[in-house]
Amino acid sequence: MQKMISIENFGNKADFGYDTTLAVFQAVSMSRKYPAATLSFPEGEYNFRADYAYEDYYFISNNGAGLKRSVFSIFDCTNLTIDGQNSLFVFHGLVSPFIIDISRNIALKNIIIDYEKPICSQGTVIDASANHIDLSVTEEYSYRIDGKKLILLGDGWEFPLWSIMEFDAIEKKPVFGSGDCCGGSDLSELLVEKLQDGVLRLKFPVRKIPAAGNLILLRPYLRTNPGIFIKNSININITNVKIYHALAMGVVAQKSENINLEKLNTMLKPDSTRVFSAAGDAVQIVNCRGAIKIDGCLFENQTDDPINIHGIYASIFKIVSENTIILKFMQFQQEGVKIIAEKDEIKFLDKETLLPYLEARVKHVVYLNKSFFLIETCENISQFIKERDLVENISDQPEVEISNCILRNNRARGILISTGGRVDIRSNIISVPGAGIKISGDADFWYESGAVKNVHISSNLFLNCNYVAAWGKAIIDIDPEIKDPEKLPECYHRNILIENNIFQTFDTNIIYARSVDGLIFRNNKIDKTDTYPRYHKERYTIKAEGCKNIVVNGNLFDDAFDPTS
Amino acid sequence: MQKMISIENFGNKADFGYDTTLAVFQAVSMSRKYPAATLSFPEGEYNFRADYAYEDYYFISNNGAGLKRSVFSIFDCTNLTIDGQNSLFVFHGLVSPFIIDISRNIALKNIIIDYEKPICSQGTVIDASANHIDLSVTEEYSYRIDGKKLILLGDGWEFPLWSIMEFDAIEKKPVFGSGDCCGGSDLSELLVEKLQDGVLRLKFPVRKIPAAGNLILLRPYLRTNPGIFIKNSININITNVKIYHALAMGVVAQKSENINLEKLNTMLKPDSTRVFSAAGDAVQIVNCRGAIKIDGCLFENQTDDPINIHGIYASIFKIVSENTIILKFMQFQQEGVKIIAEKDEIKFLDKETLLPYLEARVKHVVYLNKSFFLIETCENISQFIKERDLVENISDQPEVEISNCILRNNRARGILISTGGRVDIRSNIISVPGAGIKISGDADFWYESGAVKNVHISSNLFLNCNYVAAWGKAIIDIDPEIKDPEKLPECYHRNILIENNIFQTFDTNIIYARSVDGLIFRNNKIDKTDTYPRYHKERYTIKAEGCKNIVVNGNLFDDAFDPTS
Repeated sequence: MQKMISIENFGNKADFGYDTTLAVFQAVSMSRKYPAATLSFPEGEYNFRADYAYEDYYFISNNGAGLKRSVFSIFDCTNLTIDGQNSLFVFHGLVSPFIIDISRNIALKNIIIDYEKPICSQGTVIDASANHIDLSVTEEYSYRIDGKKLILLGDGWEFPLWSIMEFDAIEKKPVFGSGDCCGGSDLSELLVEKLQDGVLRLKFPVRKIPAAGNLILLRPYLRTNPGIFIKNSININITNVKIYHALAMGVVAQKSENINLEKLNTMLKPDSTRVFSAAGDAVQIVNCRGAIKIDGCLFENQTDDPINIHGIYASIFKIVSENTIILKFMQFQQEGVKIIAEKDEIKFLDKETLLPYLEARVKHVVYLNKSFFLIETCENISQFIKERDLVENISDQPEVEISNCILRNNRARGILISTGGRVDIRSNIISVPGAGIKISGDADFWYESGAVKNVHISSNLFLNCNYVAAWGKAIIDIDPEIKDPEKLPECYHRNILIENNIFQTFDTNIIYARSVDGLIFRNNKIDKTDTYPRYHKERYTIKAEGCKNIVVNGNLFDDAFDPTS
Repeated sequence: MQKMISIENFGNKADFGYDTTLAVFQAVSMSRKYPAATLSFPEGEYNFRADYAYEDYYFISNNGAGLKRSVFSIFDCTNLTIDGQNSLFVFHGLVSPFIIDISRNIALKNIIIDYEKPICSQGTVIDASANHIDLSVTEEYSYRIDGKKLILLGDGWEFPLWSIMEFDAIEKKPVFGSGDCCGGSDLSELLVEKLQDGVLRLKFPVRKIPAAGNLILLRPYLRTNPGIFIKNSININITNVKIYHALAMGVVAQKSENINLEKLNTMLKPDSTRVFSAAGDAVQIVNCRGAIKIDGCLFENQTDDPINIHGIYASIFKIVSENTIILKFMQFQQEGVKIIAEKDEIKFLDKETLLPYLEARVKHVVYLNKSFFLIETCENISQFIKERDLVENISDQPEVEISNCILRNNRARGILISTGGRVDIRSNIISVPGAGIKISGDADFWYESGAVKNVHISSNLFLNCNYVAAWGKAIIDIDPEIKDPEKLPECYHRNILIENNIFQTFDTNIIYARSVDGLIFRNNKIDKTDTYPRYHKERYTIKAEGCKNIVVNGNLFDDAFDPTS
């Protein structure tokens, strides 16, 4: 029995005025009384303020920890559907639209998410030199200048400028060869002055001078509130949801099972001049399990990668007893994320080679604090392991299907994948400035696990990817951070099949592969374009280091594609 | 059946080395398996580091919110005794010794608490003028100078200097007439330079020049970790516990019932040169109920008041429906403290007069976020109340007994009391620089509730109190912040009986009373001392404003005590 609840049961538009937040809280509370419920919004525009939004302390992987407010605070819910009926939801202040926690069978559909004041700002280049950029900033964006530092202002927040990026005025995509901070300029000494109302001069050593008329994206550092945060939940369906903006990543899921994203678009707000959608990755899936399906989505202009699916490596800090160890989180945005639970299977890996040498089952876990947690295993392990080695949760290895999506015009890469589960990347159009697909793994900085075992990349169109050198070595970039992989007995990754794709590219360097056992590149079509000038100094079609069992055949190369010239 | 657990079950001194924290965690975990347990420590010195200490997010009234670590994390425990057997517990880093949460029948006894690196520092005045103070700082205290600002350093923390205070070199008590920041000097432009190793020059406009040889206490602003924090717990006994230092307040209890403190001493570390004990109030009791007993305690040299027992006024921010309102916390260190629970009785008060006009019973509460909470009452209330008025929880009105304690040499006042429960302050020696007893209540800044109904102050010795003007108008200072109380139909406070006390004082101004109905001052002895010069310009024995039913009789005055001269 599905209980139908309308938001209008909790007031009408006049009651809500500029703030429907409390009505949503009441509606979600009411929905818990029914075994199944749909909360619907008559089509229209709804505003939600942060003031009365529900708050809890969350550690959000790759985003940050803190007291986080959310309007739709969906915790301890089962069988709940939120149907926006294509309404526009406009959020005000530091708040997440949705946090789904300890819930099951939750559907979000037909919703458009935007913010009154985005966390990003932008301006149009009026003039630029090796020492300055003059920007015209419209009234849509608020700022103040504090001792020659630019402070971006919003609704209840202010953050200093941290990073800038040049976007093409017409195509609204990152500019060839520019990347972060206009060619990697050092912004630490950046000074700002106001030339006249709405015109700012940024003074710093500009490494790649932006073109007049192009747009400069202005970003703060903090990722406060993702658009949709999913934690410890099962069976989450997000369908026909448009994210014009999120204050941090678009969708973040951690320690959850079965996530289905269908027609989830992080996209430019129509009829706006914005060059950004979500402020961070569009979709970040961390230590999840089950099936992750991403189908028919448009991911454009978010300020970081469209999709990143990975686990977290923790480091063995102290061996306490035969079966008890203290683990440490190694990257600050992973701290406090409860990546291992009782009954999970874990794998131990050598810190240097990233090769596994032992598996065990977890009997008991205590998260002592955000930095350290203690696990007790069913088996005695102390004699086999050593401090500083890594632990990975191998129960958290989702199967992934990414199909019929368009990925374009964002900062950095396309799809980042690290899971031992079956991965199927099929029929997508990928047009991003960095690697179109990146398969990595490291214990140096990100500590993102883990090795892939079965990846199928087929029937995708890679369209002029990899036009900013800093964001990828090749269009498909498989680069686990392992020293001298050729000296090791085993490879880190396994079984990557790349077939029936079309690579339309202005340059060479289709595949870079490191430490892969079983790489097949077959029946692909490679077309040369003239979109950008070639820039790779080391040119190749496929470069493999420390790999085994490589098969390349049946690929069709445009005559103009010539890595040897 | 009491299970006896020794910390030595979890390792020996060599195992613990410099860190017994994990052993304590394991021991407390084990204790939960028994209906009653005593965890004991063979007498000796134990060290506890913050690294593996258990952490949770806490809102600690009057201290601050955040992820807080504690070594003895006593949550969900019943019938647990921690017996230190007079051991010295030395803590390292930003960590609370004890957090007791959602527990019942907990006893702490025979424990000495200290820190390797206190949060306060101090130095000896070598030279001073109206523009500078030169300080000799021993190696015990660590600091660095960052752009002429003094940064105090500890074990895993660093905080900028926020406040200073002059202490007498011999008596180790605040200096007559000096108070905060050497006579209330403005430290905002304070610059520091190092004259030589261990000698610092503080440059700022010094309003009261400290004497060479005296000691200057150096304090940061943040109150990170109280010594013992008690929350949502019942029947807590603390006996024979010495707090040489706490990083914030000594003991903080909120929303708890029946707290017994017997021989709890916040005291100077013996054989040290320190002028401080706990960094904040010794005992802060907030929205508790039942019986609060404080007997035979020594409270000296904590950097704020010895005892403050009060509730919290919340402000009506929005009337949502006939029986639903949104309340707001008005003081930032009260934010997030869950002061009202289901079934509690609440009282509504006028914001201006602080007079009550309605009572109701709470049906449901939702803490939306740290700023706002929503309550639903059993009765319809909207027609009687108005926004901006106050709400007080009248179920949280503990009975208080404070007896046989010594209060001395701290910053500010003695006993601060605001509870409608019966209060018995008996046979204490109170020698503090501000008011010996302060009974207040306000809706301007602190929002500390509430009115007293039955206070008995008897057989205490008030010894040269009130020698810093900023910290009290009189030795007993009853000063609710109400404008024109004489114009109001009722008084805020009621029934304060002051009898058989001895006031030894260098000045006049024994009692200041505002808005009290029923003040009896009888059979007290008032002796004049020559300890300090008189400084009150307005001299009186008792001054009453807006009071009713005052009885003064049988008091014995020293001939030298003369408020008229």
